[in-house]
Amino acid sequence: MSPDTQSDIKQKIEAANAEAVKRINEADPVLVDIAPAGEVIPGLKDRMILHSGPPVTWEKMCGAQRGAMIGVALFEGWAKSPEEAEKLLQSGAIKFEPNHHHQTVGPMAGTISVSMPVWVVENRAFGNRAFCRQVEGRQQFGEYSEGALDGLRLWRNVWAPALRIGLQKRGGLELKPIIAKALQMGDELHNRPVAASSLFANAMAVAMVEADVAREPLLGTLKYITNHELLGLGLSMAAGKASADPAKGIEFSTVVVAMARNGSEFGIRVSGLGEDWFTAPSPRVNGLYLPGYSEKDAGCDMGDSAITETVGWGGFVLAGATGILALVGGTPEEAMKYSQDMRQITVSASPNYRMPIFGFQGSPVGIDIRKVVQTGITPIIDTAIAHRNPGYPIIGAGLVRAPLECFQMALKAFGQKYMK
Amino acid sequence: MSPDTQSDIKQKIEAANAEAVKRINEADPVLVDIAPAGEVIPGLKDRMILHSGPPVTWEKMCGAQRGAMIGVALFEGWAKSPEEAEKLLQSGAIKFEPNHHHQTVGPMAGTISVSMPVWVVENRAFGNRAFCRQVEGRQQFGEYSEGALDGLRLWRNVWAPALRIGLQKRGGLELKPIIAKALQMGDELHNRPVAASSLFANAMAVAMVEADVAREPLLGTLKYITNHELLGLGLSMAAGKASADPAKGIEFSTVVVAMARNGSEFGIRVSGLGEDWFTAPSPRVNGLYLPGYSEKDAGCDMGDSAITETVGWGGFVLAGATGILALVGGTPEEAMKYSQDMRQITVSASPNYRMPIFGFQGSPVGIDIRKVVQTGITPIIDTAIAHRNPGYPIIGAGLVRAPLECFQMALKAFGQKYMK
Repeated sequence: MSPDTQSDIKQKIEAANAEAVKRINEADPVLVDIAPAGEVIPGLKDRMILHSGPPVTWEKMCGAQRGAMIGVALFEGWAKSPEEAEKLLQSGAIKFEPNHHHQTVGPMAGTISVSMPVWVVENRAFGNRAFCRQVEGRQQFGEYSEGALDGLRLWRNVWAPALRIGLQKRGGLELKPIIAKALQMGDELHNRPVAASSLFANAMAVAMVEADVAREPLLGTLKYITNHELLGLGLSMAAGKASADPAKGIEFSTVVVAMARNGSEFGIRVSGLGEDWFTAPSPRVNGLYLPGYSEKDAGCDMGDSAITETVGWGGFVLAGATGILALVGGTPEEAMKYSQDMRQITVSASPNYRMPIFGFQGSPVGIDIRKVVQTGITPIIDTAIAHRNPGYPIIGAGLVRAPLECFQMALKAFGQKYMK
Repeated sequence: MSPDTQSDIKQKIEAANAEAVKRINEADPVLVDIAPAGEVIPGLKDRMILHSGPPVTWEKMCGAQRGAMIGVALFEGWAKSPEEAEKLLQSGAIKFEPNHHHQTVGPMAGTISVSMPVWVVENRAFGNRAFCRQVEGRQQFGEYSEGALDGLRLWRNVWAPALRIGLQKRGGLELKPIIAKALQMGDELHNRPVAASSLFANAMAVAMVEADVAREPLLGTLKYITNHELLGLGLSMAAGKASADPAKGIEFSTVVVAMARNGSEFGIRVSGLGEDWFTAPSPRVNGLYLPGYSEKDAGCDMGDSAITETVGWGGFVLAGATGILALVGGTPEEAMKYSQDMRQITVSASPNYRMPIFGFQGSPVGIDIRKVVQTGITPIIDTAIAHRNPGYPIIGAGLVRAPLECFQMALKAFGQKYMK
């Protein structure tokens, strides 16, 4: 390839990446509905379970994701016992597809089925929609006990419908101001969405009273949302997905538009490389464990929640959320370093989402696979830890680095596509 | 004085200061009521107005405090026009007394009269109570327009009674967990009580629905408390006062138990020095102004809100609340430095209130007048700026240093009392 051609390609890449980041920055995510997944997620059918990460088969599925699938089969009434559920899932009668193939994201195992209410976020700047299921600490980690499923049933039957009524009366809820504000309140919007959760509950309390939700569901829902510190993660994930999707499919762009893990594989997608996943084995998490659990119990990294890092939140803004260190371990100095390092592998800084601890500098946006490979600095991701076997709730939380291999493979594919 | 006597006194001081800080740290502030001041504040009578800072006369009163007094006279119906109110206040028919002489604190002008609902905080570890009026941005800054007074009327007639019903049903609200959590959510609980306000609103939403507050006042109150980012300051001030008061009157203690300003004078009180105020002229504030205002419009530092710094919040934990810098100016590095400096003039660190940015180190507690005088490092205080003339709302916010002179005078008095 001549130097002129090389320089020409480089210019095309820079322009494409600028466009990708412009689209991410222009996103205007608005929560417009909380609806049963089957009503709103395109292509989601009965007897189908969406899951986190790149495509996966039952055979290759990790323990926690299998457990979560068993939970969904019971939740939907497709099976009457865990054994029956497992047989059904093994049989091929239930179809598994990645959330990301349906404009959707899900935390941890990420399992979504028809009757599960999901957050519906519309990106008003581009007209696209994204979906995310509710965050909880049990079924999505692979637990399928009646206790774990009861929480989901209350969400489906009482809390989500009450919120839906309030939201409809309100005419939607703009998430950009909540996210921007939460980032100045010690949130990183992944493992620590405490402020976003509280601000969301404030807004929905008014909305539900204004919509005359009946006393019993109103009170139950208020108690639920005002005591659920992870609630905001479902919102930031849906907002992240809605913000990243318009940046997909830009020819010549080396910007990452998705990072997702199924507990077996870690995968990334790149704007200029279409729908392909570039995968590597899912890494182990470096973190802290809940009492009774240790590293030997841990499964590998899992979940679509790295969509938050993909758009510049989560581990990328750890320095502004040092309250999280009690949960994931590490020091404030390390947190500062992570956030500074992420500037080296990103295209620019957000004009919307700012970090007071860095003098209101914007959060780092637009992971460039070239910069990752050149520097060897991989994206830092806040994450939770699931058990290696099915049947357990959350066992810990920590930090993980995206595997360098994914970025190397993507860059190789980029070369093959654009630099022949 | 012999070296032995000196050493003996030093030991007595250390023991007394350890006891003072122990009492502050053991405080357990609980919001137990929201009630008309006349019902609950000891010694508050009709035709009396409590104010911020050390004692002051109408003649020496600054413009903003005069304006706030005029507002109260109109609010209570003691006068029908600002002119009539001013005459009445000048005449001596209305008694002025400092909030601090009534277990009370008030933001800015600090004006409190019989019908004004106040936060009632009980320190359950010691049984004492403290009171603080509601924070707003107009009358307490000296504005007395009908618009400014309408806000106070709604607070008195609708919002406070609705919250009172909810709070009574709930059986009180523990403030220690809210304050501890807010400090990990980017609050410093003085100029920036955003998280505390949000957490409080969520707790009260549940409480008011549970107490079956009627739809109209419920909705009005919810809208008010979920959109009032300074609401939490009234709570932290009352909690600060309730926490500091048990540390009063400990023989030999050099720990500061109050810092307060009336816009004309800045005063401190010291545990071992009884009820005396040690005062100096109120300093000018270094800050940022709202559009249309500048330094030449500014009055001097005012308000009892420095009770938050007195117990180790506010400017003392600025490093954990860098979001505030957009409001008060300065850099994150300066904020870090302030919080580190405050450790040099305090007795110890709080076991309850921790700062993630410093690896969960406790906030600095117990200002020691000896250390202030020895180091020349004066307490740093977050504050707001009122106009120099009566009739204006808030015009800015910034930082101020407590005058060294107050501490020098107090130390001199300490020497005269204990080291003769």
